[in-house]
Amino acid sequence: MHLNLNHPPPRATLNEVGPRDGFQNLPRVLDTALKLEIIAGLVEAGVSELQVASFVHPQKVPQMADAEAVIASLPANRRVSYSALVLNRRGLERAVAAGIETVEISLSVNDAHSRANMGMDRHRALAEGCRMLRQAKNAGLKTVASLQCAFGYLSPEDFDPFQVADAARTFLAEGPGRFTLCDTTGMSDPTRIVAVLDAVAPMAGDTPLALHLHDTRGLGMVNLFTGLCRGVVHFDTALGGIGGCPFIPGAAGNLATEEALFFLERLGVATGIDIAAVSRVTRRLESVCAARFTGRLHRLMP
Amino acid sequence: MHLNLNHPPPRATLNEVGPRDGFQNLPRVLDTALKLEIIAGLVEAGVSELQVASFVHPQKVPQMADAEAVIASLPANRRVSYSALVLNRRGLERAVAAGIETVEISLSVNDAHSRANMGMDRHRALAEGCRMLRQAKNAGLKTVASLQCAFGYLSPEDFDPFQVADAARTFLAEGPGRFTLCDTTGMSDPTRIVAVLDAVAPMAGDTPLALHLHDTRGLGMVNLFTGLCRGVVHFDTALGGIGGCPFIPGAAGNLATEEALFFLERLGVATGIDIAAVSRVTRRLESVCAARFTGRLHRLMP
Repeated sequence: MHLNLNHPPPRATLNEVGPRDGFQNLPRVLDTALKLEIIAGLVEAGVSELQVASFVHPQKVPQMADAEAVIASLPANRRVSYSALVLNRRGLERAVAAGIETVEISLSVNDAHSRANMGMDRHRALAEGCRMLRQAKNAGLKTVASLQCAFGYLSPEDFDPFQVADAARTFLAEGPGRFTLCDTTGMSDPTRIVAVLDAVAPMAGDTPLALHLHDTRGLGMVNLFTGLCRGVVHFDTALGGIGGCPFIPGAAGNLATEEALFFLERLGVATGIDIAAVSRVTRRLESVCAARFTGRLHRLMP
Repeated sequence: MHLNLNHPPPRATLNEVGPRDGFQNLPRVLDTALKLEIIAGLVEAGVSELQVASFVHPQKVPQMADAEAVIASLPANRRVSYSALVLNRRGLERAVAAGIETVEISLSVNDAHSRANMGMDRHRALAEGCRMLRQAKNAGLKTVASLQCAFGYLSPEDFDPFQVADAARTFLAEGPGRFTLCDTTGMSDPTRIVAVLDAVAPMAGDTPLALHLHDTRGLGMVNLFTGLCRGVVHFDTALGGIGGCPFIPGAAGNLATEEALFFLERLGVATGIDIAAVSRVTRRLESVCAARFTGRLHRLMP
């Protein structure tokens, strides 16, 4: 493995997924007003991309039952791009009706995960995802296509970069606005990041690649670093490192926004986001939830 | 910055500092018997280097008041090397009397930290450290020399690799058995790791270098990775990521042993340590302390 960061990129963007991936893994359902307060705080801190909801069945994920209400009251800001996650056609219909700017259409490359989470095998999920991507584009939405479990699922053996590349080729052919590779269960390491990026990047053309990293096993930041060295400049993170995976009890969450920001600042990579301001929002959420999030830096910031 | 891991080292050693750096930052003082149980569990898990005590004033660090008792009852194992931390002459006398195999003689390269922690400026601390290293060698002990705050202290400005190199040159001239660079307050990042190692390595000769990393800001693992790419194969870690810094309330601890092990395994670097076995010891300690340590992986292991 050979990593070169002699010329770090001048700029990277963090897509704040805390209000979606994070909130849906919190121990309590948050009021819509509190969600909007947290989102507004993040926007004020300089965050320019936020995933604010998921259109899933409210009985399956009660935390996301107010997706329409959240989207209806988002702080208007031309600098900020809001997205919602969509996993099926019904969700896409709701997203279109709600008037969200961007939808992320997500599916799993792992067959067992796809069956458990989506109720269909990975081939059908991919065909469905491609159809949804076309529908979303036809409806005038911006799109992100994402592959869950791109770096493994639960056992060390279920990693296959060529399978990821196959799915990526088909999904990318639909022309998404961005293509995100997700380490859903935090199974990646730098060698897997390199293997997947080297397989996928040549077929991405002008479509920007992103990494969605979980810190389940403590390798989130070293995986971000590896992506950065391989030219990736878009990363999904969550305030305070909230988030998780409903299939892994006790699993840690997304890579913490504050820590990714600190790291990027140290490398001279600009993000436009104020770490201390994000940290204050995180501490507010931590205090409301009476929880101690897995991120560390937000508790040290002024 | 240019990092190359095309040929990862076949083997690395983790020096388990949980029983010293970790225990002294726990909210309660542990019984000697419990300490010995944890140490025995770590030895059974395959840990071959452990720092088991610090010879500091018992009123300053009550957790370490039983240092002699712990050392007197350590599990005898020829494969295992035990060390104690020593910060002053009185501590060294106690270490010699206690019959510990290895002493780590540690001082800070940061003037403010040295005055706050040791009550003397960094120049006097270095002269004292060199004298203690000679005394320890004369007493027939194996030695580790370590520099605290080698990657910064509290503000972003107080980092000076040339100052570190100056102190390292003097300290290394005494011929310690190992030389450890400590990120005491978790202020490092890969650029600082590279800057310090590139300054210190040329003068280390045959003395093996080690990194003592804290995960205060989430960069512990990416710093380990950088060290590994620069040829370092000795790292201090603590079970469950316990540890901290008494001068930084809320600061996270050492890099978690389990997560470093997982990372090294993924890179094909052998350690001889069983992650699941360490995780069971960590969960036992977590349950006794009724705490949730900052490490994550130990809760996911069988």
